[in-house]
Amino acid sequence: MKVLITGIDGYSGWPLALHLLGRDHEVVGVDNFVTRRRVSEVGSWSATPIPSFPNRQKAVRELLGKELRFYRGDLGEYAFVHDLLAREKPDAVVHLAEQRSAPYSMIDVHHAVATQVQNLTGTLHLLYAIRDASPATHLVKMGTMGEYGTPNTDIPEGFFEMEFHGRKDRVPFPRQAGSWYHWSKVFDSGDVMFASKIWGLSATDVMQGVIYGIRTPEMTDRRLLTRFDFDETWGTALNRFIVQAILGLPITAYGKGEQRRGFIALEDSMQSLRLAVEHPAEPGQYRVFNQFDAAYSVNELAEIAARVAKEFGLSPVIDHPPDPRVEAEQHYYNPIHEHLPALGYRRTRHLEDVVREIYRDLLHYRRRLEAKRHVVAPTVQWRSVDSRPALEARATPSPSHPPVGPGEPASEGPPA
Amino acid sequence: MKVLITGIDGYSGWPLALHLLGRDHEVVGVDNFVTRRRVSEVGSWSATPIPSFPNRQKAVRELLGKELRFYRGDLGEYAFVHDLLAREKPDAVVHLAEQRSAPYSMIDVHHAVATQVQNLTGTLHLLYAIRDASPATHLVKMGTMGEYGTPNTDIPEGFFEMEFHGRKDRVPFPRQAGSWYHWSKVFDSGDVMFASKIWGLSATDVMQGVIYGIRTPEMTDRRLLTRFDFDETWGTALNRFIVQAILGLPITAYGKGEQRRGFIALEDSMQSLRLAVEHPAEPGQYRVFNQFDAAYSVNELAEIAARVAKEFGLSPVIDHPPDPRVEAEQHYYNPIHEHLPALGYRRTRHLEDVVREIYRDLLHYRRRLEAKRHVVAPTVQWRSVDSRPALEARATPSPSHPPVGPGEPASEGPPA
Repeated sequence: MKVLITGIDGYSGWPLALHLLGRDHEVVGVDNFVTRRRVSEVGSWSATPIPSFPNRQKAVRELLGKELRFYRGDLGEYAFVHDLLAREKPDAVVHLAEQRSAPYSMIDVHHAVATQVQNLTGTLHLLYAIRDASPATHLVKMGTMGEYGTPNTDIPEGFFEMEFHGRKDRVPFPRQAGSWYHWSKVFDSGDVMFASKIWGLSATDVMQGVIYGIRTPEMTDRRLLTRFDFDETWGTALNRFIVQAILGLPITAYGKGEQRRGFIALEDSMQSLRLAVEHPAEPGQYRVFNQFDAAYSVNELAEIAARVAKEFGLSPVIDHPPDPRVEAEQHYYNPIHEHLPALGYRRTRHLEDVVREIYRDLLHYRRRLEAKRHVVAPTVQWRSVDSRPALEARATPSPSHPPVGPGEPASEGPPA
Repeated sequence: MKVLITGIDGYSGWPLALHLLGRDHEVVGVDNFVTRRRVSEVGSWSATPIPSFPNRQKAVRELLGKELRFYRGDLGEYAFVHDLLAREKPDAVVHLAEQRSAPYSMIDVHHAVATQVQNLTGTLHLLYAIRDASPATHLVKMGTMGEYGTPNTDIPEGFFEMEFHGRKDRVPFPRQAGSWYHWSKVFDSGDVMFASKIWGLSATDVMQGVIYGIRTPEMTDRRLLTRFDFDETWGTALNRFIVQAILGLPITAYGKGEQRRGFIALEDSMQSLRLAVEHPAEPGQYRVFNQFDAAYSVNELAEIAARVAKEFGLSPVIDHPPDPRVEAEQHYYNPIHEHLPALGYRRTRHLEDVVREIYRDLLHYRRRLEAKRHVVAPTVQWRSVDSRPALEARATPSPSHPPVGPGEPASEGPPA
C-alpha cells in the first residue's frame, strides 16, 4: 500500500516510516520541521542526535535499501496539501503532523492559540484535500487517550450506548481533556467524525496512549534512531524520570502520583498503526481505537525508573513536588481496548524491558543530557501564571548549541 | 453593572445593548464589522438599513438619552483584548463576536477554517485576558443548541449523570454538531469549561436556540432597528420563508421538513442574557443554559409563515427542495430548559405574533428585498461539493449596492 505520513520527522512518524518500509509498503513523508524548532525554542534538544532529513533518507537507502520520498511543506497551506493528495493519491494518510505537547500548549496565550489553530487547520485541510483530490484515501488520525480525561466509569472506544430519561442512543463518549493541546485533539476528532459523516470519508481515529521507548527493531544503526525528548515541555514523565536518574537529579513524580494513564511501547504503537492502515475503515465509517496496553500510575513509572536505574549503578531518589497540572491525583481508570486485538494486535514489549533499553541508549548520549540538565525540572504551570518568563530565563542557548535557522533541518548539536 | 458586549454591531449584540441600557446598566461595545463585510461578500445586505456605528451611537444618545461607548477592534489581536479588559474591568462580558452562520462555514475549505480558527481564537484570547487583566469578570458566552445535535434522548443543560458498565459520573453531554460552525461552538464550550476549571473563572455558556424577530421594545425608532438577514447564508429558515412570501417566491422547506429545533423570540433572548448577567455564575463555576422556549419543525415554520402571509394579501406556496444539509429529517427532540425559569425567566412573545410583526416591518423595506431576491435560494451544499462557484456567480453586486471598503462601517445600501 502507499502510505503518506504527515509529521514523518517526528518521534512516531520516523519509526512508522521504517516499520512500513520493512513491510514493503511504499512510504511518502511530509514535514515542516516545526518540532525541531520548538524543542530548540524551549532550550532543549533530542537526547539522540537527529540527522538532517536528507541524511535520514540516505541512511534508509544505504542501511535498509529502501527509497523514502519526502515533501517539505506545511499543512497550514491548503494549496500544498491539496496538490500533495492529488499527486500521490495514497491508500492511507497517517496524520501525525500536530503540536503534541500539553505543557507547550500551556505556556501562554500564544502557545495555546498556536496549538489549537495549527492542529485544527492542518486536519481540516487534510479532510478537504482528501475529499477533493483523493476521496478513497483512508485517514488514520492521531488522537490521544487524554481526550477522555478520567471519568469515574470505564472508557469505551469512542462511542457508547447512553441512557437518559429512559431513552437510549449510541453517541460519542463525553470528552474532558486536560490541556489546550488535549482539547485540540478533541476538536480534531469532532471534525473528522463530521467529515466522515457528510462526505463518506473512511477514517480511523487513534486514541493513543502515552508511548514509551527509544527504538524499534528496524533501527539497526544509530543513524536510524528516532528523537527522544526529555525536557519538561516535550518529554513524557517516564522519559524525564530516566534522564533525572542518569543526571543524579531527584525523580519528580508530581503530586500524589496516583494519576493513571494508558501506555504502549513505541514498537507496539507502530504495530497498531500498521494494522489500522492494512485494515482500513469502510467508506463513511468513522472508527475509534483506544491504542494502549496497560495503565500505570506516575508512582509506578517512578518506581520502575528507579529500580532499573540501580542495574546501571544509579541510585535516584523520588520526590513529590506539587503537581503543576490541574488534574485528579487519585481516580478510577479503566479504558476498554478491544478493537486492535480483534485485528490481530499482540503486545510484544513490556515496560521494564523497554526502560532498560532506554537507559542503555541514553547512557551513550550522556553528554547531550548533561548539557541540558537545566531543562528537565517543571516550570510550566496549568494555573493562573504566565509560564513564559520562567521558560525564557532558562532557555538561553548553551554555548554548544548551534543556532538553527527557521526551518533548517539541521543536525541537532554534538554527537555522543 | 458594567457589561462589555463583543459583537455589539450584530443581530443580537445591538438589541442587547439597548436592553441593558434600558435597565440602567453601563454598556461598552466592541466590533470589527466583519458581519457587514461577510454579508456583502455573499451579495446580500440586511433587510433593515443599518446606520454606521457612529450614527447608531448618536441615535442612542438622541432617542434614549444614553451613552454607548465603543471600541473598534478585533478579538484576533490579543494585545487589544488584554488592554480592553484591563481598562474596562467589566462585571460581565457577553461574548457574541463570532462567525454565526452554518452555511457560511460550509462554503469551502477556507470558510471552514476561518470560522473555526477565528471563533476559537477570539474565545481563547478573551479567556486569557479575563484571567490576566480582570479575573472577577463573568463570561457569558454564546453557544448554540446545535452543539447537541439531535440525539434520540432528552437533552440536559450541559451536563448529565452518565452510567456505563455499572458506574456513574456527572459529565458533559455528548456533542454532535451539524456544521463546521456548530463544531466551532462545541470547541469554544470545551475551552471555556476548561478555563473555568483550571483558573476559577466564572462562566455561563448559553446554548442559544434559533432566534426569531426583528425588533425589541427599546427600538422606538427605525434608526434603532437591528439587522435582519434573509439570504440563504445569513438568514434563518424562518427569515427566508417570510421574505420568500413577500417576494412571491415559493417557501423552501428543505427535505421532509420534520427537522425540529428550539426557538426563542429576540426580545426573550435579550431577557435571558440579562438574567444571566444579573445573576452571575460563581467563581470557578461553569454553567450551561439551554436558552429557548419551544421547538418547531421546519414544516411548522413554513405553515406559520404562509398562514400569516395571507393577512397581508400574500399567497405563498410551500416547496420541498432536497435538503442541502446532512441532517436527520425526522427525529426525536426534547431538550430541557429549567435554569433560566429558575432565575425568573418568563416567555413574553409567541411565534405567530412575532411573525406578524416581521411581515409588517419587512413590507416597509420591500425595495431592499426585491433588490436581493436572487440570494434567498440555497446554493451552499453540505455534501462533497465546493459551493463557492455558485455563490460567486450569484454574488455580483447589484448596481444599487454601494462598494464597501474593508471594515468600513458604512450604511448598507438605500433606505426603504
